[in-house]
Amino acid sequence: MEQHAFKVIAHMESDFSSKFGVPRQSGLVPELRSRIVFEPEFRSVDALRGIEGFSHLWLIWQFSLAVREDGWSPTVRPPRLGGNTRMGVFATRSPFRPNPLGLSCVKLEAVDFKTPDAPSLIVSGADLVDGTPIYDIKPYVPYADAHPEALGGFASVRPEALEVDIPAELLALVPEERREALGGVLAQDPRPRYQNEPERVYGMGFAGLEVRFRVDGSKLTVVEISHAK
Amino acid sequence: MEQHAFKVIAHMESDFSSKFGVPRQSGLVPELRSRIVFEPEFRSVDALRGIEGFSHLWLIWQFSLAVREDGWSPTVRPPRLGGNTRMGVFATRSPFRPNPLGLSCVKLEAVDFKTPDAPSLIVSGADLVDGTPIYDIKPYVPYADAHPEALGGFASVRPEALEVDIPAELLALVPEERREALGGVLAQDPRPRYQNEPERVYGMGFAGLEVRFRVDGSKLTVVEISHAK
Repeated sequence: MEQHAFKVIAHMESDFSSKFGVPRQSGLVPELRSRIVFEPEFRSVDALRGIEGFSHLWLIWQFSLAVREDGWSPTVRPPRLGGNTRMGVFATRSPFRPNPLGLSCVKLEAVDFKTPDAPSLIVSGADLVDGTPIYDIKPYVPYADAHPEALGGFASVRPEALEVDIPAELLALVPEERREALGGVLAQDPRPRYQNEPERVYGMGFAGLEVRFRVDGSKLTVVEISHAK
Repeated sequence: MEQHAFKVIAHMESDFSSKFGVPRQSGLVPELRSRIVFEPEFRSVDALRGIEGFSHLWLIWQFSLAVREDGWSPTVRPPRLGGNTRMGVFATRSPFRPNPLGLSCVKLEAVDFKTPDAPSLIVSGADLVDGTPIYDIKPYVPYADAHPEALGGFASVRPEALEVDIPAELLALVPEERREALGGVLAQDPRPRYQNEPERVYGMGFAGLEVRFRVDGSKLTVVEISHAK
């Protein structure tokens, strides 16, 4: 079989230690900040010349937690359809695909020239787990990439957000600059499946915290926040 | 260095035998038709289930003509800037990048179930040379992918089209269903560089034809069309 090796040029540094809680598309939680740290060979101020002229970037990356050793399956069950309906893998953005390649559009917030691993890119809206390998970074070119009139099949509309309740004494445990992002992440419904079990407590790691919550209908309530071990 | 091998899942079948004439972004010449032919292992009706619900697809592919053996250069000279100004490679869509990965948005015209190599995908607007290896096909999800408000840096506006003159006796040599596409391709200015040499004759292969033309200012005139050898 014809194949080609691609080099990891960078890794994502994000608040998600595992896939639980990661938004299911880029841009859904604009408050999320993360940082693209280049591998030493690709750490170059020259390679970023002019990038500040672009507001959005494409990342091509690897679903590093979704590598299957047993081949690929032609169909997958998108969470958007309740996890019960099978769709063709090429009609979905599922991580489980012949090549575990991810595609995300992020907003470029800043180029950081100051840290020891500079230059790095501060971005927002990313849906990448901490440590995700990145293969390419491209500018978003609106005249070629923006098609607001496109038909989005079963993913035509943005998923509805949950109403989120984080009791004040728990929110106080979250660093102030992460509070909005945490609210945005929870509103995206981080449950692995969409069954209505109001009593069940789910857990999610975020920014070094372990966040536990319940979901009743369209309302999510945080019941515990602690420091991850 | 960390790297990962990705499998070629399909190849593009297009009217471009070489990179000359290929539009510089996807979608610039909507009349262009091409066909995505899957490798036998990935030729599956199931894998395409539901794809007709999407009007646009992303292709992740390899700039197979741009593989450099001598490493990568942090800067490139985009044709859009006249070929003289150096920009950081990550601020451009240049083929010459650390990993020669291309990203294109194409329109899905049809799923072909009838040819011996079916199912294949008929798409329009692609900017891929004939034979280009494809690694992934994903649906375009407008709520996550469409950002018409994005700032496009030096590539903010669509390049201006040339006025194209194809004398009737030459156009008659082009198969009828390819005429509009040929006009669209020529209007994109297929010259390798943007020097104004009105007497110079340029050549381009398209759909098995060799097309020769001159460009004077913003006007392109076809001077010869013959069958490619």
